[in-house]
Amino acid sequence: MDPIGFETHPERYRHWRLQLDGNVARLVLDVQENAPFVPGYVLKLNSYDLGVDIELADAVQRLRFEQPQVGAVVVTSGKERVFSAGANIHMLSGSSHPFKVNFCKFTNETRLSIEDASAMSGQKYLAACNGTTAGGGYELALACDEIYLVDDGSSAVSLPEVPLLGVLPGTGGLTRVVDKRRVRRDRADVFATLAEGIRGKRAVDWGLVDAILPRSRFDAAVHERAVALAAGGGPRPASGIALTPLEVDRGRDTLRYRHVAVHIDRNSRQARVVVQGPRTAPPTDPEALRRLGADAWTLMVFRELDDALCHLRFNEEHCGLLRLETQGDSATVLAWDQALHAMRQDWFAREILLQAARTLRRLDLTARSLFAVAEPGSCFAGSLLELALAADRTYALDDEAVRFTPSSLNAGTFPMSHGSSRMLARWLHEPERVADILSGGPYTAVAAEAAGIVTVVADAIDWDDEVRVAFEERASMSPDALTGMEASLRYPGAETMASKVFGRLSAWQNWVFQRPNAVGERGALKLYGRPERPSFDWGRT
Amino acid sequence: MDPIGFETHPERYRHWRLQLDGNVARLVLDVQENAPFVPGYVLKLNSYDLGVDIELADAVQRLRFEQPQVGAVVVTSGKERVFSAGANIHMLSGSSHPFKVNFCKFTNETRLSIEDASAMSGQKYLAACNGTTAGGGYELALACDEIYLVDDGSSAVSLPEVPLLGVLPGTGGLTRVVDKRRVRRDRADVFATLAEGIRGKRAVDWGLVDAILPRSRFDAAVHERAVALAAGGGPRPASGIALTPLEVDRGRDTLRYRHVAVHIDRNSRQARVVVQGPRTAPPTDPEALRRLGADAWTLMVFRELDDALCHLRFNEEHCGLLRLETQGDSATVLAWDQALHAMRQDWFAREILLQAARTLRRLDLTARSLFAVAEPGSCFAGSLLELALAADRTYALDDEAVRFTPSSLNAGTFPMSHGSSRMLARWLHEPERVADILSGGPYTAVAAEAAGIVTVVADAIDWDDEVRVAFEERASMSPDALTGMEASLRYPGAETMASKVFGRLSAWQNWVFQRPNAVGERGALKLYGRPERPSFDWGRT
Repeated sequence: MDPIGFETHPERYRHWRLQLDGNVARLVLDVQENAPFVPGYVLKLNSYDLGVDIELADAVQRLRFEQPQVGAVVVTSGKERVFSAGANIHMLSGSSHPFKVNFCKFTNETRLSIEDASAMSGQKYLAACNGTTAGGGYELALACDEIYLVDDGSSAVSLPEVPLLGVLPGTGGLTRVVDKRRVRRDRADVFATLAEGIRGKRAVDWGLVDAILPRSRFDAAVHERAVALAAGGGPRPASGIALTPLEVDRGRDTLRYRHVAVHIDRNSRQARVVVQGPRTAPPTDPEALRRLGADAWTLMVFRELDDALCHLRFNEEHCGLLRLETQGDSATVLAWDQALHAMRQDWFAREILLQAARTLRRLDLTARSLFAVAEPGSCFAGSLLELALAADRTYALDDEAVRFTPSSLNAGTFPMSHGSSRMLARWLHEPERVADILSGGPYTAVAAEAAGIVTVVADAIDWDDEVRVAFEERASMSPDALTGMEASLRYPGAETMASKVFGRLSAWQNWVFQRPNAVGERGALKLYGRPERPSFDWGRT
Repeated sequence: MDPIGFETHPERYRHWRLQLDGNVARLVLDVQENAPFVPGYVLKLNSYDLGVDIELADAVQRLRFEQPQVGAVVVTSGKERVFSAGANIHMLSGSSHPFKVNFCKFTNETRLSIEDASAMSGQKYLAACNGTTAGGGYELALACDEIYLVDDGSSAVSLPEVPLLGVLPGTGGLTRVVDKRRVRRDRADVFATLAEGIRGKRAVDWGLVDAILPRSRFDAAVHERAVALAAGGGPRPASGIALTPLEVDRGRDTLRYRHVAVHIDRNSRQARVVVQGPRTAPPTDPEALRRLGADAWTLMVFRELDDALCHLRFNEEHCGLLRLETQGDSATVLAWDQALHAMRQDWFAREILLQAARTLRRLDLTARSLFAVAEPGSCFAGSLLELALAADRTYALDDEAVRFTPSSLNAGTFPMSHGSSRMLARWLHEPERVADILSGGPYTAVAAEAAGIVTVVADAIDWDDEVRVAFEERASMSPDALTGMEASLRYPGAETMASKVFGRLSAWQNWVFQRPNAVGERGALKLYGRPERPSFDWGRT
């Protein structure tokens, strides 16, 4: 099978239409039911699969860069009487466990990117639920700022996963209902077990939707609200920057982008991910940055890394250990960081930094062991230092040519899912030292160990053995235990809604996805749509 | 098989010795290896099983009530050169999935009870690791305030679960290492994958232990520190209250305590849990309260409920839905609440309230659906109102005789695992209303619905059908999906270390406990101790 690709463009969308009208955009879901991502199921009732969600992720991303004048986005359906039936059940029940888990993670990241666009870029999202809004369809609406439901006596919002499928509403639904919409938890319990869902006044009273609107004035009222939201956000940039296609050379064991290369060794179940620093000096003002557009190093390198991570997750399931390397000149990385930091009031500079932040969160959430390796020629500085700070461990050769250098971007420009900076997450025991550490440097390998950046320092005599043994040992351990361990260690400190979506909800969903009551021959997910009733093992755990 | 019982007494301990010396206690783990809780494995190297942990939970509880003069507790081992090897692996690998999950949950609750004794009652715990401290042994040490490790050139602390067993250190280990001990997360990664563990100066430098001490002065130095800690906590009560055995009449389908009754209907997979309010007026001063001792209603009713919950978790695995009822006089419940609240500076009154808080947290953490039902004769008031607030739903008959009444104890005396009061967890959307609601009442069923206490109100005509259908529907759903859903909805808002132990860590552990890489015929947990190497499916999820 061809590898799964994550790049697309509105002109190639098969399931979404992106319509622009001044500073309001409409994202119209109109799924082609006979165009599933892989053959074997029909995408009825605006249900979605990975292909549909890749387009959505692309649209959300492009709206920020290419259409920054847009201040409000209406998400609606192009079908009569159905908004979306959620993730396609036959796709789910026919998928492997790893695919299901990675599919859910990707869709969760897409929904968080919608919330990020709203919070950080002022692009407000309205869900215009013009028909039945079920399961993942309602979870998509939950990711929007406001939810409007048509009041036609039949269209309801629902999370029917538990009663119908024996799985969870795992695309953030359970978490967002109580943590974001702040629906009372006893009502959330009723709602999440009611297959037919809730409509009308009760949906409003319980906070499941913001308003119900009659069909006769549904479109007009939603549009009016979108116009008001777009106007309320203050002045917006007049025009955007095109996200040109990534240039990538795909070999059997390699992916070569312009600034990122991935080398896969399937024998050892490892991949090297090599990130190149910039080769040219940064632009000196926003105008020059805009002229660079998608060629701006920070934008391109993190777009490439993002694409590479998605590739590794879906196409290289057995590749359990990523060796993160950097190559280039630290001073030039720092110059780019400094330039973007100085321009951060400019919308494009800010979008570039926000995109890097999302990519780094995707890295944190990647269920692979991450070992960063620093040798002469590396450039773990500023924005690229985050790769070392995201890693489970960092190995550094004790050599004069190896240096680690913080920049002003390490202090909080790239927050993790639970809101902490990666450096703070390493200094929970002495948070007052973080500012000092970030204002210091460049650090030698030994000094970087003390600064909380480097885990293991080895001299030239021991280096090869030290690194080889560490990688071999890691690659020999149970991949499941490592996934659970890494998910537990990467997020020290308090949790937020976003981190709970992955920590609490997804962990439980992954458990449920293993259980015979869902996926066994007589499980509810397997039997959905068939005349037989599921048969449960009633033991409660 | 006889049902598992949770009551014991120091005189009957087989694995622990409780030694008292003024205001310092020693809890000496000296596991009888040939006395496993169920036949089939040998408890070598001070490894533990449920029987060992039931004794520990009992000791921690009794120290608070019976030995309140104790200000410091030294947890150590009675074996040469081994502190504890952790949970017994052969016990784990031979256990069913539900038993493993419930065993881990109980041991987690016991470790949190140690932290609760330290934080709330000033009984400080010192782990005196006088030998090898591995896995669950180190996790027990992590629950203590301070950890001392013998410096003998060989004794190490370790979490070998991931490298040796393919499972997680799931008794809070991963969470406490980074969240409590605040070990840098890259070092935690190294530590949790190093089968042989870490000893000596490095263990101190990384924060894994507080100090290392030579064997020659280990006991003396630990004792000295314990004496200092006990003295530093200020004056303590001179003598305690005996926790007399619970009186319980066990039938095939019933458990009848003095204030709590459990009626099990295995056909419908439901149990009624009926909690009786007090029949007599409360004591009017601490002296009178002490004379009542273990007969004090609040103490006894929550001890009984705690015992009943443990019974249901372990002995009635198929009983997925608990119907929570109260019977009695609300005014008398409120009088008891008011009396304890007024006496809360008294150590015994405070311990009673803290014990009730722990029981209510155990209720929140019980993986069974909880529906409270209020009919005439019920007394959902104050401390018993928490049962309704802990429930996934509350059904109330619309009848003049049904009332819900808050007391001063609902405001924060019984925090959930993540620190929120149960009432606040229902009003995250309008937290400013909580104080008003709590100062109001008694509420009719309808008013209680508006106050966030009651989910469904029905009149006499609909009542029977409404309740019957709701219970039948709930009992028909996938028990796994319900467990995951309830765990997600019960804890809205930010998470803390304690809630992460159950939410993030345990959810991942339960997932790992299902995976063939751990529990399959060639899984690491199954093959431990045998000459064969485990064989892994390398797919990463």
